[in-house]
Amino acid sequence: MSALKNDRFLRALHRQPVDRTPLWIMRQAGRYLPEYRATRQRAGDFLTLCKTPDLACEVTLQPLDRFPLDAAILFSDILTIPDAMGLGLTLDEGVGPRFTSPIREPAQIARLGVPDPEGELRYVMDAVRLIKRELDGRVPLIGFAGSPWTLATYMIEGGGGDHDFKRAKQWVYAQPDDLHRLLAIVTESVIQYLRAQRAAGVDALMVFDTWGGALAADAYRAFSLNYMAQIVEALGDEVPTILFTKGGGHWLEAIADTGCSAVGCDWTVSLADARRRIGSRCALQGNLDPAILRAPIPVIEREVAATLNAFGAGPGHVFNLGHGITPDINPDHVAALVAAVHRGI
Amino acid sequence: MSALKNDRFLRALHRQPVDRTPLWIMRQAGRYLPEYRATRQRAGDFLTLCKTPDLACEVTLQPLDRFPLDAAILFSDILTIPDAMGLGLTLDEGVGPRFTSPIREPAQIARLGVPDPEGELRYVMDAVRLIKRELDGRVPLIGFAGSPWTLATYMIEGGGGDHDFKRAKQWVYAQPDDLHRLLAIVTESVIQYLRAQRAAGVDALMVFDTWGGALAADAYRAFSLNYMAQIVEALGDEVPTILFTKGGGHWLEAIADTGCSAVGCDWTVSLADARRRIGSRCALQGNLDPAILRAPIPVIEREVAATLNAFGAGPGHVFNLGHGITPDINPDHVAALVAAVHRGI
Repeated sequence: MSALKNDRFLRALHRQPVDRTPLWIMRQAGRYLPEYRATRQRAGDFLTLCKTPDLACEVTLQPLDRFPLDAAILFSDILTIPDAMGLGLTLDEGVGPRFTSPIREPAQIARLGVPDPEGELRYVMDAVRLIKRELDGRVPLIGFAGSPWTLATYMIEGGGGDHDFKRAKQWVYAQPDDLHRLLAIVTESVIQYLRAQRAAGVDALMVFDTWGGALAADAYRAFSLNYMAQIVEALGDEVPTILFTKGGGHWLEAIADTGCSAVGCDWTVSLADARRRIGSRCALQGNLDPAILRAPIPVIEREVAATLNAFGAGPGHVFNLGHGITPDINPDHVAALVAAVHRGI
Repeated sequence: MSALKNDRFLRALHRQPVDRTPLWIMRQAGRYLPEYRATRQRAGDFLTLCKTPDLACEVTLQPLDRFPLDAAILFSDILTIPDAMGLGLTLDEGVGPRFTSPIREPAQIARLGVPDPEGELRYVMDAVRLIKRELDGRVPLIGFAGSPWTLATYMIEGGGGDHDFKRAKQWVYAQPDDLHRLLAIVTESVIQYLRAQRAAGVDALMVFDTWGGALAADAYRAFSLNYMAQIVEALGDEVPTILFTKGGGHWLEAIADTGCSAVGCDWTVSLADARRRIGSRCALQGNLDPAILRAPIPVIEREVAATLNAFGAGPGHVFNLGHGITPDINPDHVAALVAAVHRGI
């Protein structure tokens, strides 16, 4: 493995000084890029794209060939783990993710196994190895997984659900012991999966807690944060970790207390507030409102400057959007965003 | 108007001592009640129910006849104001609210008038007068309106939208001056509407900021909170006011700083944290996760006690859910919740 030619991103995660704020973009390899849509069409469907290392590598690198970004992120999906557990994932555009065999009865939990990262999930590790080789040290590679609570939510709801999470919340309130058993298996799976990604070469790891923000404060700690903390602890200090709970703006201190390297902030958070609250405990990643990319370029430039200003001087900021980029964005607007971050405040 | 026989709710809003924590339930007059569904069927559709004072009065009183609640809330909808402005509201079950003439061009703003609360909106004031007479002082009556930002979002999106608020956010970032002009007219309409509700007899006023939580922190202050603050100031001290921003948990201090009587908290907020942060500036309303009402009764009882405990001793708590009750809830579970709040910690 080559030494990294650009380590701004890793330095920022360690709160070390950098020449300028590093940036990457959540879902930077995605449908807003015509070259992505072309590869996706060749693949036939999204899941084949994820499961074919050559193609996953190709789309991972596409945004880096277009924009001078400071990190690559593995092209994959958070639902690879439940898919490998045998729940039968389908990912159709317009419908969203669906499992053919969701978890409906506690008895099903005993039949779930921890997937072998170099077995059922080998396609992910092969993609990591291939991407690392192709990157040849240009920028660090980020690996990732869904948070145990978010994965369990999908597994119980059988899909994205109506964002009310009726079934998953039934488990929270009426079957908490069953839910903890499910979360324990999912957590062990996530730990083995992320360790294998690390062994395959990723330089940093991010946990996406997409649905943690739907929980009441106490339930968030018990059913989501607690398991993310176990993951951070299991991964130890050898690889930087980023925890991102969408809608978790009022829990930033507790997230930082897990010992993660950085807290991902959605666009509703004020980075100035977040920094005051978290202090020097860890770095911050975020958090431009993705909707701003639809505005004229001078507005994008103004809002990038406002985001950099909100964080202020000093180390520990990784610039990003506050959520994934949407398919309708003009790539020229992304180029303008990247240039604005490069110019700095 | 009779003197109130039960003023717990108003005393709590003023942070005065009470014999027990008062409670009411957001959407307490709603589809979970068979008697509501019967009246609704007689009315034919939701909008007719809102616009017929006799029927609006009937459903407002139904939950009070069933449960010993400490406040009634006017049965109406936040979209009465844009409807009265001529946007053509339809409210079909399953589809949600839709406007036949949404605001798509800034030129439309100049043609919007402030509705006359005793003209186009007289049916609301007639309902308030009728409900006050029928209540005969049993409990206080809460009037309400949507926040200017939330109403403007519906007016621009033409309905509930996809919760991405693409059009409304375009206005935030690319046409902020137009949006401020629209918000100014909507704010004036809300102020006149709430003043008229007060004149017609309501005892407290609540502003529902359903979509404020979708905004970035700076945009929330500029486009939502700023206008709610104008409303609180315009209403003055003669009537207690409650501001509720769903997803606004990290902005509670700023909401309290408007001078409102109480901050409504959604279920993601820890009331203990909220109280530490807000101190004695105002009262708090909330915040049981509505999903808990689907759990077995002992769980409901435990979680009610946890919510009361989280607020702790001392005045200034109005018990409520953290969001509206959903149509699938068993009324017996609501009875259990009410009894548990009455028992206290």
